Amino acid sequence: MKNTILVVGSVALDSVDTIHGSTKRALGGSAVHFSLSASQFTPVKMVGVVGQDFPEKYRGYLKRRNISLEGMEVLPGKTFHWVGRYDRDYKNAETIATHLNVFEQFKPKLNEDHKRCGVLFLANIDPDLQRSVLDQMGEPRLVACDTMNYWISLKKPSLLKLLKKVDMLFVNEEEARQLTGEYNLIKAARLIMKMGPRGIVVKRGDAGAMLFFKDNVLSVPAHPIEKVVDPTGAGDTFAGGFMGYLAAAPDWKNFDVIRRAMSYGTVMSSFAVEDFSTKRVGTVSKPQICSRFNKYVDNLHIR
Amino acid sequence: MKNTILVVGSVALDSVDTIHGSTKRALGGSAVHFSLSASQFTPVKMVGVVGQDFPEKYRGYLKRRNISLEGMEVLPGKTFHWVGRYDRDYKNAETIATHLNVFEQFKPKLNEDHKRCGVLFLANIDPDLQRSVLDQMGEPRLVACDTMNYWISLKKPSLLKLLKKVDMLFVNEEEARQLTGEYNLIKAARLIMKMGPRGIVVKRGDAGAMLFFKDNVLSVPAHPIEKVVDPTGAGDTFAGGFMGYLAAAPDWKNFDVIRRAMSYGTVMSSFAVEDFSTKRVGTVSKPQICSRFNKYVDNLHIR
Repeated sequence: MKNTILVVGSVALDSVDTIHGSTKRALGGSAVHFSLSASQFTPVKMVGVVGQDFPEKYRGYLKRRNISLEGMEVLPGKTFHWVGRYDRDYKNAETIATHLNVFEQFKPKLNEDHKRCGVLFLANIDPDLQRSVLDQMGEPRLVACDTMNYWISLKKPSLLKLLKKVDMLFVNEEEARQLTGEYNLIKAARLIMKMGPRGIVVKRGDAGAMLFFKDNVLSVPAHPIEKVVDPTGAGDTFAGGFMGYLAAAPDWKNFDVIRRAMSYGTVMSSFAVEDFSTKRVGTVSKPQICSRFNKYVDNLHIR
Repeated sequence: MKNTILVVGSVALDSVDTIHGSTKRALGGSAVHFSLSASQFTPVKMVGVVGQDFPEKYRGYLKRRNISLEGMEVLPGKTFHWVGRYDRDYKNAETIATHLNVFEQFKPKLNEDHKRCGVLFLANIDPDLQRSVLDQMGEPRLVACDTMNYWISLKKPSLLKLLKKVDMLFVNEEEARQLTGEYNLIKAARLIMKMGPRGIVVKRGDAGAMLFFKDNVLSVPAHPIEKVVDPTGAGDTFAGGFMGYLAAAPDWKNFDVIRRAMSYGTVMSSFAVEDFSTKRVGTVSKPQICSRFNKYVDNLHIR
């Protein structure tokens, strides 16, 4: 179970409207986007909650990707439903409605298999819940978490307690600044490291991503995409590719391994935005991933 | 003169206010930033105009960098003076005052040496003036130009005539979109290529830069800088490093050469923002440039 990732986060139905079309109650949620991406590299077990309306076809879709759903609890009521809209520039999602539904009662409970997973990814949920999951775990060799502006504002003390115990933190630029009060990302990352994590990934959308690990700073570009259809879940897909590759690697603390993980994260998220919901990442093949990875890495190999 | 760059553009005095301090009537202008950067790689001749107040020390500063100032005309009156301010995020310069002064009478006149330069860079000035310069030239083997939103709005027909005759265009994201009406940068670049240029560099500030050349697309990250002091002229400094490297190379159309040029542009602009005005780029040494270039390229060489 050394290479198996346990992911705890949201499972959702997303209704999204964009200039390229729209989707109704499509498969979404941070744990889902993460899992579909990570399962391309390593076994994944998912812990989440859905309502009785959660379509059986989505369950099959995830299982076919070898994602263990034993931890996906079904509660009376409806599944988390997000309704959103993107403008032409795809910079910010406009939330039209958030129906938390059964997600409001989410109390992650791990079984014995979950507890023995070597790698843990705490997707963006209440930091108190993230800590309760960590407390239930055995001794994972790699723990990473995501968070958001809402928790930084409302539950900072709880988040800071969590950060003491995680190896890697995923944030976007604004979250890094909000967490530290420092505008410059290099300085902000250094301050976050003092809070606990030894590695920080700053997701920057179409500006790529930055990695801070010990004394190393790495900035990588996004893979240019000609037709962005739906960026929902791109950040979780990035984290899935990154963590999936790290989980499968013999030594995740090796900087060469981490740089490749950044590239796989980039490549997986570039697939994510090409179609609605999980359509592209759920069906992309290993050779397609390898081919885009090689093209991306070759292009950046400046001779 | 095959490798000599002729640059035509503004010479200015800049008064800039930032969170890290301010500067009064410091050396600036597109031709100046470009020249100081390009002259690290190849001989540069500058064509511009200044007033009688232009400080002798700035003239000496440029000459010591082997920039030929024979084309720097002195007119009765004052030098172009820009007064601006940057916020903490350094995203947009706020213009407080623009005193064009003698720059309003700028009518670039080339001497015989200028006309024989192998490479021409038309910095951001009125496209009618850019065309008049091109008409005076012999047969340069590489012509590049910059422009801005103002000319795209006010003089688009003239700009389009110019674009038919240039090899490379430098724009930022908004300019690429404004010029084509297309939001996606890959699609926008393809439309611009139909207007004439076979290469397009899209400058994206701290998100790096993108290059489109024939069928190739390359996105490179910015070199992360811990303390951004003054971004004025960073785009022209990028163009200077890029064009300087291309001018000195045996075959500028080779994609490997162009990729290195993108990296040198990135590295030069990373120096530019580290201090006010031209202080850093005007004093940086060859070994410092090489060291940062090697670090940048090594970091992106994902093994």
